[in-house]
Amino acid sequence: MNTVIRSQLLRFSVGRGQQFRFSTAAANGNDLVIGTVDETLGIAMLTMNRPPANSLSLEMNEAICTSLKTMESNPKIQSVILSSSNPKIFSAGLDVSELVSPHPDRLPKFWNSLQQLYLDLYGSRLAVVAAIQGHAPAAGCFLAMACDYRIMSSGDIGGEGGGDMKKRFVPTIGLNETQLGIAAPPWMGQLLVRTIGFRQAELALAMGTLFPPDRALSIGLVDAIESEQHGAESTIIEGLSELLPSISKDQASNPLMQKAFKQATTFAKIPPHARVASKLVTRQSHIHDMIATRDEDTAHFCGFVTQEAVQKNLIAYVEAMKSKSKKK
Amino acid sequence: MNTVIRSQLLRFSVGRGQQFRFSTAAANGNDLVIGTVDETLGIAMLTMNRPPANSLSLEMNEAICTSLKTMESNPKIQSVILSSSNPKIFSAGLDVSELVSPHPDRLPKFWNSLQQLYLDLYGSRLAVVAAIQGHAPAAGCFLAMACDYRIMSSGDIGGEGGGDMKKRFVPTIGLNETQLGIAAPPWMGQLLVRTIGFRQAELALAMGTLFPPDRALSIGLVDAIESEQHGAESTIIEGLSELLPSISKDQASNPLMQKAFKQATTFAKIPPHARVASKLVTRQSHIHDMIATRDEDTAHFCGFVTQEAVQKNLIAYVEAMKSKSKKK
Amino acid sequence: MNTVIRSQLLRFSVGRGQQFRFSTAAANGNDLVIGTVDETLGIAMLTMNRPPANSLSLEMNEAICTSLKTMESNPKIQSVILSSSNPKIFSAGLDVSELVSPHPDRLPKFWNSLQQLYLDLYGSRLAVVAAIQGHAPAAGCFLAMACDYRIMSSGDIGGEGGGDMKKRFVPTIGLNETQLGIAAPPWMGQLLVRTIGFRQAELALAMGTLFPPDRALSIGLVDAIESEQHGAESTIIEGLSELLPSISKDQASNPLMQKAFKQATTFAKIPPHARVASKLVTRQSHIHDMIATRDEDTAHFCGFVTQEAVQKNLIAYVEAMKSKSKKK
Repeated sequence: MNTVIRSQLLRFSVGRGQQFRFSTAAANGNDLVIGTVDETLGIAMLTMNRPPANSLSLEMNEAICTSLKTMESNPKIQSVILSSSNPKIFSAGLDVSELVSPHPDRLPKFWNSLQQLYLDLYGSRLAVVAAIQGHAPAAGCFLAMACDYRIMSSGDIGGEGGGDMKKRFVPTIGLNETQLGIAAPPWMGQLLVRTIGFRQAELALAMGTLFPPDRALSIGLVDAIESEQHGAESTIIEGLSELLPSISKDQASNPLMQKAFKQATTFAKIPPHARVASKLVTRQSHIHDMIATRDEDTAHFCGFVTQEAVQKNLIAYVEAMKSKSKKK
Repeated sequence: MNTVIRSQLLRFSVGRGQQFRFSTAAANGNDLVIGTVDETLGIAMLTMNRPPANSLSLEMNEAICTSLKTMESNPKIQSVILSSSNPKIFSAGLDVSELVSPHPDRLPKFWNSLQQLYLDLYGSRLAVVAAIQGHAPAAGCFLAMACDYRIMSSGDIGGEGGGDMKKRFVPTIGLNETQLGIAAPPWMGQLLVRTIGFRQAELALAMGTLFPPDRALSIGLVDAIESEQHGAESTIIEGLSELLPSISKDQASNPLMQKAFKQATTFAKIPPHARVASKLVTRQSHIHDMIATRDEDTAHFCGFVTQEAVQKNLIAYVEAMKSKSKKK
Repeated sequence: MNTVIRSQLLRFSVGRGQQFRFSTAAANGNDLVIGTVDETLGIAMLTMNRPPANSLSLEMNEAICTSLKTMESNPKIQSVILSSSNPKIFSAGLDVSELVSPHPDRLPKFWNSLQQLYLDLYGSRLAVVAAIQGHAPAAGCFLAMACDYRIMSSGDIGGEGGGDMKKRFVPTIGLNETQLGIAAPPWMGQLLVRTIGFRQAELALAMGTLFPPDRALSIGLVDAIESEQHGAESTIIEGLSELLPSISKDQASNPLMQKAFKQATTFAKIPPHARVASKLVTRQSHIHDMIATRDEDTAHFCGFVTQEAVQKNLIAYVEAMKSKSKKK
């Protein structure tokens, strides 16, 4: 039986002596993120759960950071799977409502929470495995790039009996900001440069390219794609089943989640002190760059987004989304 | 009918209300570069036209910069195709006559004009598509790398009835300076690093490698190669036909030029403000580096090239070229 | 007949008027490295010869540096092949006995000798070709990365009549430090970043990956792999035969060594002044970085390795090696 502990931000549920569950409550009582940990294996799972699209609001950014910090504070945990409760969307990126007619006090706080998410995720002592089942545009792609390993689903290949009639679902990933008339902030663009190389990043930024899984793999934007259902070992299915939050229990049979679980287990077995030191070799200077230019970056972003022309574009975008949503 | 306006540097010809042509006159009355613009599509074409090999003299560098600035000053233009009137040579690189027994006043001016060409082309608000039909060695490769997209011809595959008897023309591209006994300046070498990655660049610089189209594509030195004649849409052929200068009208059927036209059209449709901002993310710091080290770079180059040993090599090279030219 | 000249550190043997041999004597009278030069071709060979595994002790580091400097001081020499007298091990990396219960005076000297090896090899005016026949883990991989070109053996494919019964020998290469519970120093990690790109390097450092030849080639950790015995031109076999030290004469028929010989010959034909200038374009700033942070790096390493926990791990590692060695 589980004991449930509630605090202002975190709910923990304890079971089997070696597994803990916690979630971060949103203002409306729903959980923005759900966290579970398995101390025996040394791995955790952080499930983003802000319907409909896991868009990144101030509160969502803070919820991810808080959950991550809680997991980091447990010395038995070495790696974490970052996933989404929505099988079609990993994260749609920034919550546009944070940007439209923003309150002058909240806007810099929001941007700071995004910077903090970068610092906390990119510099985490945990090895973070992104399980990208659905779309990851714009800041959704950024979230994935700030992890240590990215596995992407190759999408729904039609299903049984679906034939050509059934529309195939293919997730995409990329910094597509230019297509919306804005530009990714420099530190996000530079993260793309580090992930896929200068030339591919430059072209993808200019074009605002969203890559399907096979292209994302070939340019190195993801490390693996997972398509075929293959018989997983029962220990993997069992372990994964224990780790998955109750709203995602059906994902234990998902080969993407199984692969993410295996990768997280592999990371957890590497001597942690050495793994973290090796992470600092490549990431420390970039984390310092962000800290040094943080205020400047916030001022630049707030100045940019409050321009009349940018506001006009964003309002038009929100209207288009609403009208698209109504049609459905 | 066209109205022709002449200024000291630029000739404009206006036609169809939405298309302008201009060219930059050389001292001898020929046009060093020919520019055409299509305001409706938002694209322009800059055709290098300094026979026999589009080698970069002080005046040629200035002509390219002036034409580019004129195009940039037209707010309706968003992208430009950089091409050559010579189907076998994109550009042969620096004009060696600028380097042999140089006048002490002209030499630094020449080097400054090359630095300016880098700053203007690499930092242009326009998206520049290099249409590389022929060879692009040394500074010819640099020109292409300073653009935003590179399409290279796969060369003449023999032609009808040519069989094995006919010698195939295969263009090559690369910084082959070491093969001539000189070295590319650091900023040109670093541009190669950014384009094809550190390791490939280091090896290519040491060996002075000239890459054929397929190799250039596989290492990322060009973004696409074009070989097969494929039926282009008539709108592309018409639009391209309008844009091509009179000396290159036959190029409307060239698949390389058609692909460059399509890419330029794609670039022109991206919100310009966002596209330019994304370009600054990757290029701004390198442009600042050049500005900061410009005088030092000029002093270093002038000191290097006026060394007796280097002058001897260059004279020998010019003699070899002359003798090769006579044999033809 | 050969004239042998002995100095405190170097033995030279002169033959055929154009070929010199020298070796660096270890304290025990054995040669830590053996050097041969062919002035006619402009190439040299530096054979590491510290049984059983060419591990890098203070004296081994100094011997490699001294031999390299001697070769560099000969203006007729332009390139050098770095190889191992052990066909199964290129170099096993740092000599662990330097790290276990180290003498406080010797430890910083040892680390300085490794830094010097980096500076001398990475910044050598000679083009260095690594002939990697056997394993190159940890600092063995570093040694290879500090060269100008890497050729790796694809391993023993079983031999005649061996069939499936015979165990195949497959060499591996990589910075596997995390698997031993330590981390590669930042400058070594950054060298991996430059060699295989940021993303692949980050992942390989975290996982401590040792790559087999085909994987090493595909990510660019080596430039070529050599597998098949193919009829080499007799001039190559003869030239190689002359260059090989007496203990490795049988290697003249080794296709890996033949390919290394050809690459060294190619490098030797490039105008040296230009080749060295091109090397500085990519390497100079990194060499300056090492010089600027050298003392800090030494202090950091000595502080790290003398920690009780690290000493414990190292002692356990040495014990495991000894016990493994006894079983054989």
